[in-house]
Amino acid sequence: MHPAIQPEDVRAAAARIRPLARQTPVLGSAAFDNEAGIRTLFKCENLQLGGAFKIRGASNLVLSLPRETLAKGIVAYSSGNHAQATAIASQYVGAAATIVMPEDAPRSKMEATRRRGANIVTYNRFTQSRETIAAGILKESGATLVPPFDHPMIMAGQGTAALELFTETGPLDALITPVGGGGLLAGCATITKAMHPGTRIFGAEPEAGNDTFLSMNAGERIGISVPDTIADGLRSQKPGELTFPVVRSLAERIILVTDDELRAAVKFLLLELKILAEPSGAAAVAAVLFHKFPPEIRSVGVVISGGNVDFEDLATY
Amino acid sequence: MHPAIQPEDVRAAAARIRPLARQTPVLGSAAFDNEAGIRTLFKCENLQLGGAFKIRGASNLVLSLPRETLAKGIVAYSSGNHAQATAIASQYVGAAATIVMPEDAPRSKMEATRRRGANIVTYNRFTQSRETIAAGILKESGATLVPPFDHPMIMAGQGTAALELFTETGPLDALITPVGGGGLLAGCATITKAMHPGTRIFGAEPEAGNDTFLSMNAGERIGISVPDTIADGLRSQKPGELTFPVVRSLAERIILVTDDELRAAVKFLLLELKILAEPSGAAAVAAVLFHKFPPEIRSVGVVISGGNVDFEDLATY
Repeated sequence: MHPAIQPEDVRAAAARIRPLARQTPVLGSAAFDNEAGIRTLFKCENLQLGGAFKIRGASNLVLSLPRETLAKGIVAYSSGNHAQATAIASQYVGAAATIVMPEDAPRSKMEATRRRGANIVTYNRFTQSRETIAAGILKESGATLVPPFDHPMIMAGQGTAALELFTETGPLDALITPVGGGGLLAGCATITKAMHPGTRIFGAEPEAGNDTFLSMNAGERIGISVPDTIADGLRSQKPGELTFPVVRSLAERIILVTDDELRAAVKFLLLELKILAEPSGAAAVAAVLFHKFPPEIRSVGVVISGGNVDFEDLATY
Repeated sequence: MHPAIQPEDVRAAAARIRPLARQTPVLGSAAFDNEAGIRTLFKCENLQLGGAFKIRGASNLVLSLPRETLAKGIVAYSSGNHAQATAIASQYVGAAATIVMPEDAPRSKMEATRRRGANIVTYNRFTQSRETIAAGILKESGATLVPPFDHPMIMAGQGTAALELFTETGPLDALITPVGGGGLLAGCATITKAMHPGTRIFGAEPEAGNDTFLSMNAGERIGISVPDTIADGLRSQKPGELTFPVVRSLAERIILVTDDELRAAVKFLLLELKILAEPSGAAAVAAVLFHKFPPEIRSVGVVISGGNVDFEDLATY
């Protein structure tokens, strides 16, 4: 099957999103390297505009839309970070945004989305389908859907994180990113393999939200029930139709991490690197910190994908 | 009086410390700008090696010492961040370090210093003099003292933070840094005025530790009793003999912040910028956040000077 994106799409995205997305810092930590036993470079998307990598994909799609399309509005469904990113990109171009969010999404994510001028529609993620709700709004308004991951422009936008990372670091033995729907991993894998074909690609998923892990093993997309994990950004139930073939062909395997490992990784990043990651955002960090890599890998680029946490939750880690 | 440092000393320091100190990121935040009502650019020394700007000054002095001097060892006294920085610089050049620390210094700072191979000597900061203890060790060993602020090489090293900041941002209306002994402010003011003579210079001090504020008003160095403030890095009791004339001639005034304002600034940085600052490190941030600037200042560079906090303390903010 012809892949949904090419490396050129990621390079084009980098130029398109420049006015909106930040070039985030790449940080290292001797304390982390000692603990993990491997040279680790962190691409800090928690320091990105909106607190997550999601602005890369959302702005790549929104900034490509013609004015008359934008005038009909933008719709997105998301547990939080993609919601906020879509709200930011919509506000930037002056388009009205409606965001469909689970009613139990972290309060900070919901408030941040509202602050960006978006209209929020909530739903119960155990009994209702966000796709159905979004479809109803789209039909009524003629608005454009900005999907959270399963779209070529979204995947290409997310891939700019790896483009920036490897432009700054040069080749590394491996790259690892968190995996929800697979947009970040698909985009990053595509550009990484083009820049450095020898770099091995991994994804990190919470044990309870192992849809991509199961799908990789089965060789086809496997659905799971709503995952019970602290990683609220990685509660996807099935890999994307477009993202999965890319992930399957370029990633070596998916590494699973427990919620306790996620908490420990968040705490380590906070105390040693002085940066705040959310549990979902620290999934790839946890995989490295808990020695889940093949031993011959001596250097790794790790995407910290987001940092939106409620203050009250932090104290419980 | 001839100032203790010149802009060339800061430029020389930048070259000398390059192998050891990091070029830290400069971050901005629309949420912060909205709240503060002023365009703010943060120089993130909390993301510096050792978690604070102190490595700049310590490595500038240590890396300038001849081998035979280093062989006799290094001594420093510090509440924490300068201790860790001196330990890192000493370890880098292979010199034995003895650090005199208050017995109630934050546990994380003491542990980090010990991890860097330093020998720690503790004292009671209410009943004992760290200078006297350090003098005893120096006399016995022939080691070199790396003072926390009152030394031309220390001041010049700290100034590299502002050199990097303004090289990246270009001119801004103002610069503000936290003030303990005044090394950071003196060094940063010196290079900033050389790069952009129109940039106005401010310092930020905790209300309870207002020795430099009082000294500026009096026109001479005023001593205070041991300050009771959450800002453990800004508990200096008197401005430095060398730092004060520089601060007095280049800084417009010292802005005071309360401990509650420090806590709020730490929390704001954590939740909105996703970075961890310690209360001392957030003093300049608090001054901007709580609108303590003259209204005509529309843009400001803020040094976040450190990020070493005990996890348990965070939850109480």
